[in-house]
Amino acid sequence: MHEFKYIGNELHCETVKISDIAKKVDTPFYLYSYKTLLDHYYKLKKAFSSINPLICFSMKANSNLAVLRALIKEGAGLDIVSGGELYKALRIGANPKRIVYASVGKTDKEIREAIKNKILLFNVESVPELDLINTVAQKLKRKVDVSLRINPGVEVDTHNFIATARQDNKFGLDLDTVKFLFSNLKRMSNVNLIGVHIHIGSQITESHPFIEAINIISSFVDELKKDGVRLKYFNIGGGLGIIYREETPQTAQGFAKAVLPYLKKLRLKIILEPGRFICGNAGILVTGVLYIKDTRFKRFIIVDAGMNDLIRPALYDAYHEILPIVESKFKSQNLEKADIVGPICESADFLAKERPMPRLESGDLLAVMGAGAYGFSMSSNYNSRPRCAEVMVIRGKFYVVKKAESYKDLVKGEIIPKVLR
Amino acid sequence: MHEFKYIGNELHCETVKISDIAKKVDTPFYLYSYKTLLDHYYKLKKAFSSINPLICFSMKANSNLAVLRALIKEGAGLDIVSGGELYKALRIGANPKRIVYASVGKTDKEIREAIKNKILLFNVESVPELDLINTVAQKLKRKVDVSLRINPGVEVDTHNFIATARQDNKFGLDLDTVKFLFSNLKRMSNVNLIGVHIHIGSQITESHPFIEAINIISSFVDELKKDGVRLKYFNIGGGLGIIYREETPQTAQGFAKAVLPYLKKLRLKIILEPGRFICGNAGILVTGVLYIKDTRFKRFIIVDAGMNDLIRPALYDAYHEILPIVESKFKSQNLEKADIVGPICESADFLAKERPMPRLESGDLLAVMGAGAYGFSMSSNYNSRPRCAEVMVIRGKFYVVKKAESYKDLVKGEIIPKVLR
Repeated sequence: MHEFKYIGNELHCETVKISDIAKKVDTPFYLYSYKTLLDHYYKLKKAFSSINPLICFSMKANSNLAVLRALIKEGAGLDIVSGGELYKALRIGANPKRIVYASVGKTDKEIREAIKNKILLFNVESVPELDLINTVAQKLKRKVDVSLRINPGVEVDTHNFIATARQDNKFGLDLDTVKFLFSNLKRMSNVNLIGVHIHIGSQITESHPFIEAINIISSFVDELKKDGVRLKYFNIGGGLGIIYREETPQTAQGFAKAVLPYLKKLRLKIILEPGRFICGNAGILVTGVLYIKDTRFKRFIIVDAGMNDLIRPALYDAYHEILPIVESKFKSQNLEKADIVGPICESADFLAKERPMPRLESGDLLAVMGAGAYGFSMSSNYNSRPRCAEVMVIRGKFYVVKKAESYKDLVKGEIIPKVLR
Repeated sequence: MHEFKYIGNELHCETVKISDIAKKVDTPFYLYSYKTLLDHYYKLKKAFSSINPLICFSMKANSNLAVLRALIKEGAGLDIVSGGELYKALRIGANPKRIVYASVGKTDKEIREAIKNKILLFNVESVPELDLINTVAQKLKRKVDVSLRINPGVEVDTHNFIATARQDNKFGLDLDTVKFLFSNLKRMSNVNLIGVHIHIGSQITESHPFIEAINIISSFVDELKKDGVRLKYFNIGGGLGIIYREETPQTAQGFAKAVLPYLKKLRLKIILEPGRFICGNAGILVTGVLYIKDTRFKRFIIVDAGMNDLIRPALYDAYHEILPIVESKFKSQNLEKADIVGPICESADFLAKERPMPRLESGDLLAVMGAGAYGFSMSSNYNSRPRCAEVMVIRGKFYVVKKAESYKDLVKGEIIPKVLR
């Protein structure tokens, strides 16, 4: 569910007419609904209320400061994956004790920053990383809490690029290694192994892979108990799917109902790391039609948003629904198939292919739906295109929460050596 | 050919030890060889010297100001695709009369800027675009020169995403439309149709698709002549392939030898738009090893460069050779297959898969070869990672030509509305 709906003939974000925003903000721009963000957060919170989990929003999905601020004000924690995300988290006043840090490639510097700022937990992905965290903690004369990310080796039905729990991918540790680490705790003077972590992938629409993974972890936690090892945290990661097209993903409630019986038995503090589930459908990309190009083979609707703005269709072959801002455009005419493409000079630059679309005109506005996750956060300056603005509607008003870049921003930090002048 | 070679035991960029640069510049960083850039430019220039073409470097491949400056100092023109590229071109003092402008999605504003700055030519990709250019030129009381991009419908053997001359892609105009436009010149009061343009794709290693396309255009130009239409320019685009792996691309000389007989007959000013050919092998990405992670299934070499720095492996399944900076690392040991992956939290984040590699250690440096084109220009801040530095070696010295971004750069332009504070 989300708050982008037609009222009268016009698509609105909550109560605000999107065409009114487009009069003030140049297209393309990302548009977020504050209410939708919070709704999704609270759906999850309520569904799991019986165990009061720590819900850490996965910043990599959307690291806009206003989005983060909106969520932490409601009590959300943050799931970070880099020093840059830690910086942004601290900048919006996030409580470090609600920050967990995952990534297969944490650097020495990043680990130091995270320890100094007293984050809740590192999610550790390899033995050498654990050694490095221990070494850095030693130097800083600190003892730090660590969760081990276990790769449970479950198969999930999602895009290869976002499946993360197969045995042959780079994430997490296999159970044997984790067992070895727990039985050799003394070699780690400056880390407390107090949790386990899984993250089986992204955009998963069913509960059974989660249950399968949780069961693997549960037996393991039981084994540890017998050996006298008491854990504090079980982080079940993120990965909850959303509706892009005709998916019928589990609801937060359905998901909770399926996994809660297993989780409750563990008697551990549960951590969730939702990203897409919270922000995916809370954002759209608003783009303007530049040209209609009819060829003998195809109609192309050329718009002002390119793969530099939204790379998901090119990179993941992702489907995004595309709606006209003026509803009657769609209703009053016969639809014809068209490719909706951007201005970038390569064939990868498309938003949709063979999509039934009405006859549009230059200047018409379109909404690329479900663009709140992995949209702006993956955008680039490819083709020397300044990155677009991000806008948020909050209680009946819209706010530019990130200004569009200027041409000048494109050359920031560039220096032509004197010998070339 | 390029200037990244082992001297003694160490990989050098021209005469500079890469490990010495890495002592001063944090990894990852892009490293360009000035000499290689110029060598490639001059190879093309010499091969085509008998017709003295205008060689317009395709900025989208690499728009670093120092790279551009190095080339325009030698007389190169520029092939631009956006207002941002025009801005950068003018900033380094490029002569607008050596700038050609292609893109299926030129905006009103971009067209105005280009006309005001008196670029040489628009490469026009659709009828509504031609109409818009005419309208804008009318308003500015100017008459502007235009080339029509013809889609000759030839098949080339390259990645789908960079094949641009198939009949069903978004680029160019079919011949019938172009004929119609030439026979209805009077409706276009403010444009001169004085050229034709083709660009059949990227990373093409053989000459026959070029010859096929040139022949289609030649017969068309002959037809036009009979109708009394005299053209001035024939732009044969870019697309020359380079060696990433075991390709045996045509040399500049071989390519020229194959196409010159056809081009000479045309008696038009020839424009070339090489990008990758000039800068592809003139740049590498230097990255440091963070962790070696051995699992039961695979060895992972986790490095500090991610898909945000170089997206070609994920997006195009591109192959990049990966060399150790210290050569003996490779020579003295048995090689074992490993995946070379970055720190980013998704499975798409890899530089190489199943690559025979020696036993490496944290801190070892690797060179990702052939990263000079579509490397930095496609980089992003995904996972809130600051974009890395770009460095150029010029006559025995290295220069940071773009500073690495800071954490602070990650939040530039972001504004948290008061209601969220």
